[in-house]
Amino acid sequence: MPRLFLFVGADQGDWTVTSQRTLAGEGLAPVSAVTMLGTEAAPGSGTWALRGITSNERYVERAEKTQLLAVQEGLSRPQARCAALIPIRKTAAWWALTQDERRAVFEAQSHHTEIGLRYLPAIARRLHHCRDLGEAEPFDFLTWFEFAPEHTSAFDDLLAALRASPEWAYVDREVEVRLSR
Amino acid sequence: MPRLFLFVGADQGDWTVTSQRTLAGEGLAPVSAVTMLGTEAAPGSGTWALRGITSNERYVERAEKTQLLAVQEGLSRPQARCAALIPIRKTAAWWALTQDERRAVFEAQSHHTEIGLRYLPAIARRLHHCRDLGEAEPFDFLTWFEFAPEHTSAFDDLLAALRASPEWAYVDREVEVRLSR
Repeated sequence: MPRLFLFVGADQGDWTVTSQRTLAGEGLAPVSAVTMLGTEAAPGSGTWALRGITSNERYVERAEKTQLLAVQEGLSRPQARCAALIPIRKTAAWWALTQDERRAVFEAQSHHTEIGLRYLPAIARRLHHCRDLGEAEPFDFLTWFEFAPEHTSAFDDLLAALRASPEWAYVDREVEVRLSR
Repeated sequence: MPRLFLFVGADQGDWTVTSQRTLAGEGLAPVSAVTMLGTEAAPGSGTWALRGITSNERYVERAEKTQLLAVQEGLSRPQARCAALIPIRKTAAWWALTQDERRAVFEAQSHHTEIGLRYLPAIARRLHHCRDLGEAEPFDFLTWFEFAPEHTSAFDDLLAALRASPEWAYVDREVEVRLSR
């Protein structure tokens, strides 16, 4: 199973950009398409390339994992013609918290997993970590979402709920790229 | 502050190898010296080079962190003329555990932080993560220890206590390189 993925923003690619906006911090150069590559391939002629690696879960506990596994679906469903790439970076204050403090913000205060569960199986998601790939990564996480067009408003609601949570006070860079194929 | 470190095993270097042994899994080619470099420098003519990155803590809770900060000392103390580089890899079963399960093995069952605290400030330590640097890293963690020669038997006790803990059932590759300068 590949773990390292490259997201290339360019003039052409697998997914057509339908909107691109910056929610916090520095943006990304506007592109017309995004392609997700399953290996650390050469980024070629893209405008930008972001890399991230799937990893072990950092907050989810067994009872939550059991719930997630029971309902979540994978990427590449034929009906999932909409996608979103959301790179975020968290503040130094976040990374200085201890595990119990981060877990408290993530779930007890922000209900991150609980909110995500409400939108399953409609919204499929894969989280990629960047922070420990090297010293100079521009983001900490790249989240990739896929859903059918009729679930677009549910996806809007999911993002609104997460962004209104205490956890988002620790987000200092966020870009949202909406896509279709 | 640099986060990415390179440990180069070679014929010559900053730290002289006094012993090198394999505790689990595949060993490392024997070397005479190890040098720790503070950036991702070219490994040059070394026999092997292992890289790791410091990161946020994954298990320590605030009360433990407060205790650690009160007593731990940093690297490069003049009297700390002994060191050890201990690369380890954990099993797929470990990485498939959820956060609460890993924390239970790490602390409730194995008392990892509690054991480490007993040897402070004599034994200084820095943990480097490798697993999320890429898909093909040979180890998951590189731990670097420094201590004065008179604390060698305390260091032996620390290693024995950790290796006897339930957490070590999840270690499938471990090499120990003892060093002096």
